[in-house]
Amino acid sequence: MSAFQYLLVYNSISFTFAAMAAATIFLWFGRSEVAPPYRTALVISGLVTAIAAYHYFRIFQSWEAAFLFENGVVSNTGYAFNDAYRYVDWLLTVPLLLIELVLVMRLSRDETVSKATRLGVAAALMVILGYPGEIADSNGTRALWGFLSTIPFAYIVYELFSGLSRAIETQPPQVRSLLKQARLLTFASWGFYPIVYMAPFAGLDGPTANTTIQIGYTVADLVAKVGLGILIYIIAIRKSEIEMTKTTPVQA
Amino acid sequence: MSAFQYLLVYNSISFTFAAMAAATIFLWFGRSEVAPPYRTALVISGLVTAIAAYHYFRIFQSWEAAFLFENGVVSNTGYAFNDAYRYVDWLLTVPLLLIELVLVMRLSRDETVSKATRLGVAAALMVILGYPGEIADSNGTRALWGFLSTIPFAYIVYELFSGLSRAIETQPPQVRSLLKQARLLTFASWGFYPIVYMAPFAGLDGPTANTTIQIGYTVADLVAKVGLGILIYIIAIRKSEIEMTKTTPVQA
Repeated sequence: MSAFQYLLVYNSISFTFAAMAAATIFLWFGRSEVAPPYRTALVISGLVTAIAAYHYFRIFQSWEAAFLFENGVVSNTGYAFNDAYRYVDWLLTVPLLLIELVLVMRLSRDETVSKATRLGVAAALMVILGYPGEIADSNGTRALWGFLSTIPFAYIVYELFSGLSRAIETQPPQVRSLLKQARLLTFASWGFYPIVYMAPFAGLDGPTANTTIQIGYTVADLVAKVGLGILIYIIAIRKSEIEMTKTTPVQA
Repeated sequence: MSAFQYLLVYNSISFTFAAMAAATIFLWFGRSEVAPPYRTALVISGLVTAIAAYHYFRIFQSWEAAFLFENGVVSNTGYAFNDAYRYVDWLLTVPLLLIELVLVMRLSRDETVSKATRLGVAAALMVILGYPGEIADSNGTRALWGFLSTIPFAYIVYELFSGLSRAIETQPPQVRSLLKQARLLTFASWGFYPIVYMAPFAGLDGPTANTTIQIGYTVADLVAKVGLGILIYIIAIRKSEIEMTKTTPVQA
């Protein structure tokens, strides 16, 4: 691994830890700026970035332990870089990301529970099925598990663009386009993970494949977690304002 | 590197960590002292100093790892001092600094979004374009990237002194001069970075250039982040008082 590759990953991981921790504090402070029904959505958005901050801290330590960077030369220490931190993170955060999207819509209790459960289970399944492929040595095994993981992913996309569409139409007109942006951001950033997953198929191997995977997943995590968190915050603020104006007609 | 140079940087970095962490706590406690529309400005001011505190902690660790100070003699350990922490920090904090300045003005929603977006993007571009020059070996490459980075900087200065001037005139008279001070402080402290950046052109090299750059950036960070944060706090307090007096005419 070149010094450039080593430092690019090193600094990106440190940057992402700082960004996730900052987003967490922002989202949790935002809790008291929104109406009570939207507070849980902000708590969960902040939990997602907090869990990610913890894992990026661990990934940073693991990266430092795996390589020795001395006199401008990078060498392996013999300790393996622990890639599982990312999957452990996603197992917790990916279902929560879908739940924060459902919660900010403030549907009926039954709808919230049913949508959150179905999307959450599918998301967990998607992460679990991807992992055996990530650690596989052969590209064939990687492709097989990658394909299996795509089945729950396709179900989530179907739910987002079909089931959730009807729910979006019941939302106040001022936030519909924001909700569609949040859905698109979820879809686009999640669609980025399988592309990174397939980096070894593009003929990349060794340090170059590893660097591409690390940077790719890091960028996708930033968009999917911090980006979605900020959108959820804006939607919660807008909906709180709309509902407050409605209940106090004097201001209208 | 002389023992004096080593210790000067070492203690300045430790000082700055403490100052950033203290400013963070001050700004976040201040949140409950101001009217609700100004809380986000204080949260973000505190986020800027919190992110900086994290990076000064890392810079401190990196400085300790890079040099051995034993029996009064400083020697290199072979581990490189990681200069990228500063750029990673600025990539997050410099856009946020401009956003806190826009937020405390409490403009219309559209104006806030458009000004925050344009200034934020220009600030990120300025930092990204500066980095290749910072790590370049030749002064020519340093000058080239430094010049490119000056283009978004010039745009920010133009926005601050033209677009923001009109906005400042809509502010209550009691805070106009404070807002102009905040703008001047931003301009003056940011103007300090390119001067430090060009230290190698003044014929400085090796440890002397390194010490000058470290101390220069540290002082600039303190003024730009802690200094601006305190000004934003004072402006938020004054504006909260003015608006409270307006809505409760009994006190007027």
